[in-house]
Parts: sequence; structure tokens; C-alpha cells
Amino acid sequence: MGVIHKNFEDVEPEIPDERGANNVTIRWLISRKDGAKNFAMRLFEIEKDGCTPYHRHDWEHEVFILEGKGKLVMEGREEDLNPGDFVFVPPMEWHQFKNDESERLRFLCLIPIKDK
Amino acid sequence: MGVIHKNFEDVEPEIPDERGANNVTIRWLISRKDGAKNFAMRLFEIEKDGCTPYHRHDWEHEVFILEGKGKLVMEGREEDLNPGDFVFVPPMEWHQFKNDESERLRFLCLIPIKDK
Repeated sequence: MGVIHKNFEDVEPEIPDERGANNVTIRWLISRKDGAKNFAMRLFEIEKDGCTPYHRHDWEHEVFILEGKGKLVMEGREEDLNPGDFVFVPPMEWHQFKNDESERLRFLCLIPIKDK
Repeated sequence: MGVIHKNFEDVEPEIPDERGANNVTIRWLISRKDGAKNFAMRLFEIEKDGCTPYHRHDWEHEVFILEGKGKLVMEGREEDLNPGDFVFVPPMEWHQFKNDESERLRFLCLIPIKDK
């Protein structure tokens, strides 16, 4: 298939269909349809007062904060998110990303591709 | 091990030991030592006139340009790199990242973790 090189703005944002996601969009930058076999790269944008679901699941997240500020909610605690922060959420850890203060919180979130 | 949350500046830059890498540092943000089992997140910084090796290998790269400008060199062609660009380099594709114009080219490059 060759090397794929685009800008994230070339990829349409979608509305996640999961309950508990508010004012969030997701762009699937690199995924199975591009030939990726091991992990997928997605870009999330959370508008002010938006959030991802507070949930957990049996796969990990690897996150990098590109722009904006927000909160990382974990079981029993929360921490400030700033550009340049990265987060490793191991499988089965509760987590949520919230934007309670900036115009837009933009981050990458990568996940494993499970059925190979 | 729980959720890991840091800033990339908390991770020391290292000099890659591969021949052909010039004026490049790598920070291993999330890797096997953090409990990651499927893929690793690294942050590269290439100073002006620096480059990664022109090479290929049997694993893929998933890259996101954070800051700066540069060139993506592939077999027989090259393309401009700008912030917000992403690149999927499939296994066995020739590739090189060069900084020929900006103060610093900073990007994420994720790779699979092979021996599970």
C-alpha cells in the first residue's frame, strides 16, 4: 500500500456513538483500513464542558496531549492535563478525559488492534 | 501498575545508537518497562540539518508531527512535513525524517512491541 502521509484535517471528524461522550469528536488517522495490523492512531477533540465516558475496558490507551487543557479523571482522583503530557492507561483502569477550561482539548489516543 | 501520567520533558532524551542518525534525540515515553505490551510511544527531536537514518525494517511506524518542519524521504521522492501531519510507514518501506529548515522538528513515532 506504500507510505501514507496526510494532515489530520484531511480526515473527517466523527461523533463517537458511546454513551457518556459529550462534545467530543474522533478522527481515525491510522487504522486497519490503512493496513495497520498492530495499533490504531485516533485524534480526539473535546470542546469546552465536554468529556469522554468514564469507563474501563480490557485494552490500553496511549495518549499524548496536543493542545488545550483539561482533566484526567481516574478512580478516586483527578489530575490536570497540559500540552506535552502523555498518559498510559493500562487495561481495566477507570479513566475519563474532560475539558473544563480551554476552548478545545486536542489529543492523540492510540489503541491496540485486537483481532489479527 | 496503575495509570501513568507525565510530561514528555520528564523523560530524558537519549542519543540513538544507530548509524546515520545525526542531531537526533529520542525519549521513550511509554514502553515495555511501563507495562505496555503491544506498542511503544517515542518522541523524537531533530535539530536543524539533522536526520534519522534512511533505512527500512520489518515493522511499521505511526508518526505524528508536533512542531517544526522537515522532509519525509521515501524511495524516489520526498514530501514536506508540517505540524499536524501524520505518517504510516508500513513494514519494509524505505523512509527518513530530515530537518532542513526549522529550529527543531519534534514528532511522535510509535512502533509495535514484538516479543510478547
